[in-house]
Amino acid sequence: MDTVAIVGVGLIGASFGLALKKAGFKGLVIGVSSEGAIRDARALGAIDEALPLPEAAAQADLIYLSQPIGRILETLRHLDPWVRPGALITDAGSTKRAIVGAAGRHIRRTQFLGGHPLAGKERSGAAEGEADLFRGRAYVLTPSSPGELETPAARWLVEWIGRIGGVLYTLGPAEHDRVVSFTSHLAQLASTALAATVAEHLSPPGELAISGPGLADTTRLALSPYEVWRDILETNADCIDAALEAFIQKLESLRENLRTRQMRDEFRSAAALAARLRR
Amino acid sequence: MDTVAIVGVGLIGASFGLALKKAGFKGLVIGVSSEGAIRDARALGAIDEALPLPEAAAQADLIYLSQPIGRILETLRHLDPWVRPGALITDAGSTKRAIVGAAGRHIRRTQFLGGHPLAGKERSGAAEGEADLFRGRAYVLTPSSPGELETPAARWLVEWIGRIGGVLYTLGPAEHDRVVSFTSHLAQLASTALAATVAEHLSPPGELAISGPGLADTTRLALSPYEVWRDILETNADCIDAALEAFIQKLESLRENLRTRQMRDEFRSAAALAARLRR
Repeated sequence: MDTVAIVGVGLIGASFGLALKKAGFKGLVIGVSSEGAIRDARALGAIDEALPLPEAAAQADLIYLSQPIGRILETLRHLDPWVRPGALITDAGSTKRAIVGAAGRHIRRTQFLGGHPLAGKERSGAAEGEADLFRGRAYVLTPSSPGELETPAARWLVEWIGRIGGVLYTLGPAEHDRVVSFTSHLAQLASTALAATVAEHLSPPGELAISGPGLADTTRLALSPYEVWRDILETNADCIDAALEAFIQKLESLRENLRTRQMRDEFRSAAALAARLRR
Repeated sequence: MDTVAIVGVGLIGASFGLALKKAGFKGLVIGVSSEGAIRDARALGAIDEALPLPEAAAQADLIYLSQPIGRILETLRHLDPWVRPGALITDAGSTKRAIVGAAGRHIRRTQFLGGHPLAGKERSGAAEGEADLFRGRAYVLTPSSPGELETPAARWLVEWIGRIGGVLYTLGPAEHDRVVSFTSHLAQLASTALAATVAEHLSPPGELAISGPGLADTTRLALSPYEVWRDILETNADCIDAALEAFIQKLESLRENLRTRQMRDEFRSAAALAARLRR
């Protein structure tokens, strides 16, 4: 594998380029992105050169789609004629059924293997790229069958995920989408709903100032822009709906048990989960 | 004001003693607490000596009740015969209507003025005390009428809240309890409910590992032990019930709008609130 094309050089794409280089990748990293992102990624050393998608795809051994989900879906509709057979296409989208489905319909000439690095930070954009963004973080691959991980190109990708510090998990696309609807999408909507509820019921600045550090922690995710979430909500609406339903039921149960022993059990179960997340 | 009695020398009580001393208080700080707490507080330099409540109350110019809410209510039932007229009794309980009401019924011989420092940290206990715990944090006093802030003892307390770095707010007890039901109690229950929901629907360790830093942030409050929350939930159940109802309605509305523009507006309102909390 000599040439990697990163399509969509934002925070994840730029970090992937930087991480490969830091981990010793000696090949060529091509960026396919907007002018501003290319400039920032070059300044950071995340990419070696920039090309339009057809030319980049024609050279690449690995095509890494790190655009927003909607843009990945669109890229997959056009990409197939340009790719080299034997190349691997993977992606970094936060939901997997829609993307894996689109790849199944549109990619004929080479392999597609869906991926999702559980990495990120508050600020986005190529200029925020970090070589260590994936270190210690889960990196999910979502083969539809186990054999997809056994091709030479997939083995290469798995090896480099390890080298950049990612912790590999493999899940089917549907299972992935169900799991992240709880671990990621529900946490986001809980934080957004909490902040929106507080905004509606308290008048700033005085009332809002009567808060401790806990509210700030619990509403940090609410800082995320809708533009990042629109495609996630759309492509995982059924799982998110089910997760929200379970969360609302839990809240109704807490509401009914404000003064009972049941509350103690819920606190213990919640504290155990929170402690486990910190191990 | 020469003598301060801190009743219940846990995190808040020990921090109050340390903060007074760091800010230049030259009088005597007496601790009233369990043997272990007294030992830890002495070792830290948070108190000068330890006495049983009747003797401490008889000497004190300021009696600072920093026990759990239920214990404060009990102390208020017995305290009146022991206090010196002209002394000020205040407290650090997280809800105010029950405490201010109990003080109104039981304290006859001197002034009571309710308080709530919005300070804390993950670990509790006297040994965790910090002189800077109140610095930059809201410190609410809850007079039932404005004149309560104008007595010499109340003015002394207000002055020292400023010296230890607290940011003073005054609210009536009912208004306080409504505000913190949103800024503190709802955030706690949202975090607990999120962690409990995730615990029920995912199997550790594999599925739980597929999470980013956002879930850890949003479930940090869920680490809080029930024992701290039992009295809060009991003494503010009506306000918490209303806050939970509003939060559930917001979640239902998000659920119905996973694919509509309404979601964008909720994200913007939530992000603005979250940003304001960080100013």
